[in-house]
Amino acid sequence: MKSYDIAVIPGDGIGTEVMPEALSVLERTADVCGFGMKFRNYDWSCETWLKTGKMMPDDGMSQLSQHDSILLGAVGFPSVPDHISLWGLLIPIRREFHQYVNLRPVRLLPGIPCPLANKKPGDIDFWIVRENCEGEYSQIGGVFGEGTPSEGAMQTAVFTRYGTDRILRYAFEYARKLGRPHVTSATKSNGLFHSMPYWDSRFEDISKDYPEVRTDQYHIDILAARFVMSPERFDVVVGSNLFGDILSDLGPGVTGTIAVAPSANINPERKYPSMFEPVHGSAPDIAGQFIANPIGQIWAASMMMEHLGEPEAAKLIMKAIETVLDRPDTPRTPDIGGTAGTRELGAAIRDQI
Amino acid sequence: MKSYDIAVIPGDGIGTEVMPEALSVLERTADVCGFGMKFRNYDWSCETWLKTGKMMPDDGMSQLSQHDSILLGAVGFPSVPDHISLWGLLIPIRREFHQYVNLRPVRLLPGIPCPLANKKPGDIDFWIVRENCEGEYSQIGGVFGEGTPSEGAMQTAVFTRYGTDRILRYAFEYARKLGRPHVTSATKSNGLFHSMPYWDSRFEDISKDYPEVRTDQYHIDILAARFVMSPERFDVVVGSNLFGDILSDLGPGVTGTIAVAPSANINPERKYPSMFEPVHGSAPDIAGQFIANPIGQIWAASMMMEHLGEPEAAKLIMKAIETVLDRPDTPRTPDIGGTAGTRELGAAIRDQI
Ligand SMILES: CC(C)[C@H](C(=O)O)[C@@H](O)C(=O)O
Ligand SMILES: CC(C)[C@H](C(=O)O)[C@@H](O)C(=O)O
Repeated sequence: MKSYDIAVIPGDGIGTEVMPEALSVLERTADVCGFGMKFRNYDWSCETWLKTGKMMPDDGMSQLSQHDSILLGAVGFPSVPDHISLWGLLIPIRREFHQYVNLRPVRLLPGIPCPLANKKPGDIDFWIVRENCEGEYSQIGGVFGEGTPSEGAMQTAVFTRYGTDRILRYAFEYARKLGRPHVTSATKSNGLFHSMPYWDSRFEDISKDYPEVRTDQYHIDILAARFVMSPERFDVVVGSNLFGDILSDLGPGVTGTIAVAPSANINPERKYPSMFEPVHGSAPDIAGQFIANPIGQIWAASMMMEHLGEPEAAKLIMKAIETVLDRPDTPRTPDIGGTAGTRELGAAIRDQI
Repeated sequence: MKSYDIAVIPGDGIGTEVMPEALSVLERTADVCGFGMKFRNYDWSCETWLKTGKMMPDDGMSQLSQHDSILLGAVGFPSVPDHISLWGLLIPIRREFHQYVNLRPVRLLPGIPCPLANKKPGDIDFWIVRENCEGEYSQIGGVFGEGTPSEGAMQTAVFTRYGTDRILRYAFEYARKLGRPHVTSATKSNGLFHSMPYWDSRFEDISKDYPEVRTDQYHIDILAARFVMSPERFDVVVGSNLFGDILSDLGPGVTGTIAVAPSANINPERKYPSMFEPVHGSAPDIAGQFIANPIGQIWAASMMMEHLGEPEAAKLIMKAIETVLDRPDTPRTPDIGGTAGTRELGAAIRDQI
């Protein structure tokens, strides 16, 4: 029997609460589909950092590299500065495993109240392809003149041709694969004097290899507005690390709740494990209450099965999510208008499979 | 009789179409309120650049400095790269005149169809205070290794303490002045390793001088989502040049159309003229048809009168805009659901005064 070996990092806050729901959905799915699932738990988190001063052990990356994929909950907690917790775990995994594609669906699901007027499931359905290894997220820079009136901070974004071309190419390939030959690029070449004109020139160049794919380019400011005013018009949206980050929270916001959105950190060459996580964070404000919506984590598990080459399993999970959300008597968590807990909603989805 | 001397730069595209409407509204308002208005037209634009290689003459800034305020239409046209047109006109004016505050209202007006469900005028009403002189918009950087496989681009953001503190302080003062003691800061300290932790530390420090003002901080990704999911919760939102730019297009998007939103580039010390413009751009796609909505430009004129110390005139203009929009028989431009032209909507507002 085929079996998959998964590294599980629940992380912090609600990460530890939603993860068990995803694992039990995966176990059920494996039974139904006839493959095996092996989970190895890693308790790397801000708690670990407070005890050891490290977010993961020195050989952490090599431990993870043994697995087929990584399922992550959420990282970060108020007791530890974000730039320590995230740059000690999430970001090194993305970078060292060359997970340069961050793929995030924006899809209005049935039974999720949409903040936009007159929208129904199917109306909003597109993909964000976010660069995930370089760009604005950089350690280059620092504070100068500390404590003097001329104090300040500098932050340098780096766009390599290598890094830019591979994400743009992925976006075009993905649009082709979806059969939706239309790619929208997020830019800001009128304000970011060097990086974005460069991004635009690479976009133009790469697009020539995909003559059948229609292209659009919008400055990030107006693009954000269009996500709200006309979300129907998008198919594949490609953006830098920062712009992709902003758009892939905004998109789920437009479809009602970021709690259900998943995020796939993909190494397309499959030389390294890819990592799957919900878009939401550790949510310290509701952690400990077991009222977090587990759907983001479960949908992430579905994207993982798709990546591992089990599209039927992936579909089964998605179908279960949609069926349960569509039922009038579904146990809903507070973010989608109910009073149910994480476990009840998780169990309802699992039982559907 | 008191009289105001205004530099008028219609600029490109629809800038030249909406500007006459604002001027005629201003003239009428001056008559009614009993002050004088003197306009001096400057035809600086992309057309000028194509002829002369310059967006404005060498002594352009000194010409502008003679005026009480500047009213700008829109700059930029496809025939000229954005980073030439904007960095040759709009951005030098903002910087050299120390217009370090970019103040932009987000307000749902009557009679404007809102993309959000169940919102009525009054529900969405807050202010964005955007840093307008430094930050991510910088000329530091460039392309390296051009034409080689190791090619790339770098872009450095600069946050000085001088520049950061003055915008944060303005936001707190403005919240106080409005009687809405609540400031939300846009950050991204979990991804932008140096600049945003610095921004956050300045925000914390400055906030101590305003103990009665409630503060919130959100990462820009989730903040963008909250603009859609709960726009009622904001009073004053302060952000860097880039974050403020994104939020102040997104905000008007959430309230229906960016065509009506104004933007005030303010030098609070009044050592230099301030500049008032609509948020929208030159809109090459509809330029030449005289169907652009003139309200953004007219509202910008209202903000100008407020700044010049004529609050009654400012209110009169706003009242006219709202009254006209609220009328069932209003001549509506296409962006707000009608077939009328720029001039008809402009005339309707003028006649209301
Ligand atoms: C045209 C562009 C440079 C400008 C900006 O980003 O500042 C515009 O988007 C604005 O918001 O005024
Ligand atoms: C936690 C943070 C560093 C992260 C990011 O910005 O990449 C998160 O917002 C995400 O989108 O996965």
